[in-house]
Amino acid sequence: MRDVYTRIEGGITAPAGFRAAGVACGIKAKGLDLAVVHSDSPASVGAVFTTNLAQAAPVLVSKEHVARGGGKASVIVVNSGCANACTGADGMEHARGMARRAAAAMSCEPVAVLVASTGVIGVKLDMTKVERGIAEAVQTLSSEGGPAAARAIMTTDPFPKEAAVEVNADAGTFRIGGIAKGSGMIEPMMATMLGFVTMDASVEPALLQRALKAACDDTFNAITVDGECSTNDCVFALANGASGVLLGDADFAALVDALRQVCEPLAVGIVRGGEGATKLITVNVVGAASNTDARRAARAIANSPLVKTAIHGGDPNWGRLVAVAGRSGSRFSLDKAAVRIGHVELFSDGAPYDERAPEAAEYLRGRDISVEVDLGTGGAGSSRMWTCDLSAEYVRINAEYRT
Amino acid sequence: MRDVYTRIEGGITAPAGFRAAGVACGIKAKGLDLAVVHSDSPASVGAVFTTNLAQAAPVLVSKEHVARGGGKASVIVVNSGCANACTGADGMEHARGMARRAAAAMSCEPVAVLVASTGVIGVKLDMTKVERGIAEAVQTLSSEGGPAAARAIMTTDPFPKEAAVEVNADAGTFRIGGIAKGSGMIEPMMATMLGFVTMDASVEPALLQRALKAACDDTFNAITVDGECSTNDCVFALANGASGVLLGDADFAALVDALRQVCEPLAVGIVRGGEGATKLITVNVVGAASNTDARRAARAIANSPLVKTAIHGGDPNWGRLVAVAGRSGSRFSLDKAAVRIGHVELFSDGAPYDERAPEAAEYLRGRDISVEVDLGTGGAGSSRMWTCDLSAEYVRINAEYRT
Repeated sequence: MRDVYTRIEGGITAPAGFRAAGVACGIKAKGLDLAVVHSDSPASVGAVFTTNLAQAAPVLVSKEHVARGGGKASVIVVNSGCANACTGADGMEHARGMARRAAAAMSCEPVAVLVASTGVIGVKLDMTKVERGIAEAVQTLSSEGGPAAARAIMTTDPFPKEAAVEVNADAGTFRIGGIAKGSGMIEPMMATMLGFVTMDASVEPALLQRALKAACDDTFNAITVDGECSTNDCVFALANGASGVLLGDADFAALVDALRQVCEPLAVGIVRGGEGATKLITVNVVGAASNTDARRAARAIANSPLVKTAIHGGDPNWGRLVAVAGRSGSRFSLDKAAVRIGHVELFSDGAPYDERAPEAAEYLRGRDISVEVDLGTGGAGSSRMWTCDLSAEYVRINAEYRT
Repeated sequence: MRDVYTRIEGGITAPAGFRAAGVACGIKAKGLDLAVVHSDSPASVGAVFTTNLAQAAPVLVSKEHVARGGGKASVIVVNSGCANACTGADGMEHARGMARRAAAAMSCEPVAVLVASTGVIGVKLDMTKVERGIAEAVQTLSSEGGPAAARAIMTTDPFPKEAAVEVNADAGTFRIGGIAKGSGMIEPMMATMLGFVTMDASVEPALLQRALKAACDDTFNAITVDGECSTNDCVFALANGASGVLLGDADFAALVDALRQVCEPLAVGIVRGGEGATKLITVNVVGAASNTDARRAARAIANSPLVKTAIHGGDPNWGRLVAVAGRSGSRFSLDKAAVRIGHVELFSDGAPYDERAPEAAEYLRGRDISVEVDLGTGGAGSSRMWTCDLSAEYVRINAEYRT
């Protein structure tokens, strides 16, 4: 029997046995900037980290805690406004200090605390503020604290990202919830995105890790805002078993599906809220010699400034899609290739249909845009990625971020 | 003895025995849009083409002519305003027609004519205009026609690119000249750039081809405006021997050096005139495990929208340089890495020197910016690339290009 997913209100505190808080401790000039997520009982951990070789201190410390914690954790502490990246030995001590302070407040071992930071690179954390924030957050932890936590992890995000789903599975009914933040330096593998997922089913850590990784591949790892992969990205999943539902190896595929139900809207939300974004663009590549080729071409298209500016301007410039597919490094046959913008086929079998351009231009006036490129190899490889348009506002945000 | 290079006025008609013309035939709404370059005697050919698999008709036809022409050619015909790319069988016939028409006018075989086009993809050439243009250009060919040809190949380029040098070599004195155009979809390998080089030394075709390829690697292939590689890029070199100077295999290194003297300023000119560019950025990567690693990291930095917007905004945001180096796929050691903006070292051995940020910010007010990243591996690999900043004007140009 197929599991039934029901989208529900809320995010990280929708599953049973999780509490959260978001507070303002002054790391950012204004607004909430520190979040704590707590599981009432030790939870299984899954974690996916940035592949960037310049890894921030909190990434290194959280990796260490995942490795040393026996697959269990009960607290996540996150600050925004300062990435604690490229901060040398002091940065490592600060990341450890965040974990120690939260552990002391929650009466657990520091190794049961995962830490994350996001914001400006190369600036040290003000630990006085961080410690005050942790103290205050721990005081205000509640099962209604998810939305505040979602806001506290934002940097240039225009809106908070929350998602939750109730899963009716053979094994019983449980919930998964999550929060995430973007919004520049986003090409997860993992990039400056953070994602936190909670669930109240019971799942062994190794199974949760495998399932989280698989779910990320088609969600958080299938988005890009600007092709940048950051020093701080991570996705943590905590499964505390509070629902009484037990998932085993036989439930792997269903678990991945269930995680996708939460990860996909969070990932798409990151793109929709990308810096300067005015349109969400779904890039579908088909007719590829392999899925790897399809993903490579989709990624090239999703990161192409010429494609992103054309869509921003409402220009059905299919030639740019062909040009990017051709340079992507994937196998490509121009004579058999095709380009569709929405439902409008503008190029196929080597010939343009420019008389359809006005219809495609009309379609491009919308905010949710889909483009499809057939690489023309006759293969069955396909891939889907999400990106956003490139606007002058992106340039403004990133030219003025620190100054 | 080292050859002596003297920079001289002019471009493609600076070497002896070359004439050129640039005319307006109405392919573009206004301005010159068709160029002809002619060598008084059959010249040896070198040619480097785009690696994009979606190759435009003129690329395919010129490749064929280079292969079938016995290494010789005497005419180059170029139009701007229409790329004749993704135009199917008609496009091929039009590219062949350009060559046929020019050959008839110049009394040579079509195979001795190289053709190139640049402009909008997916639009067919108006052959009536092209033929009128060729007829007029052939009438006006002259040894003073280089500047007009340089203007006739421009699309969104803000200024024409010409360079010429007189070479005093052991074998004698000869000249090399060239013209090029950018200015979006520029990441040659080869991308929407065209470059045409003439020289009046005598060089066997095979030697010229090897030397041109080597010279391109550090010049036209070391630039990027937006990371895009186009359907139409090519660099052609013609060597007609009119100076009486003969270069042989023993002169290979000197020939590469001499070609670089012309190709580098043309390539840098393309970047300086990149769409929306306000600053020329020279990216140096050192301390890499190999030159390949260094080039990969330099390319990632040169294409990073976050680096390009930071420099546009005058923000000495060294953290973004570290982040890009870390995600580039090249070996990287954060503890030993360093970042210099101009002469100001902002990060080294894992520690930031933010007190120097004001000095770096002052430096970034200039128009010629140099950044250097040491990957910290202790290796001797290095690479240099040129790029430009990313401005709101780039977005405006490319969102409104066709509309």
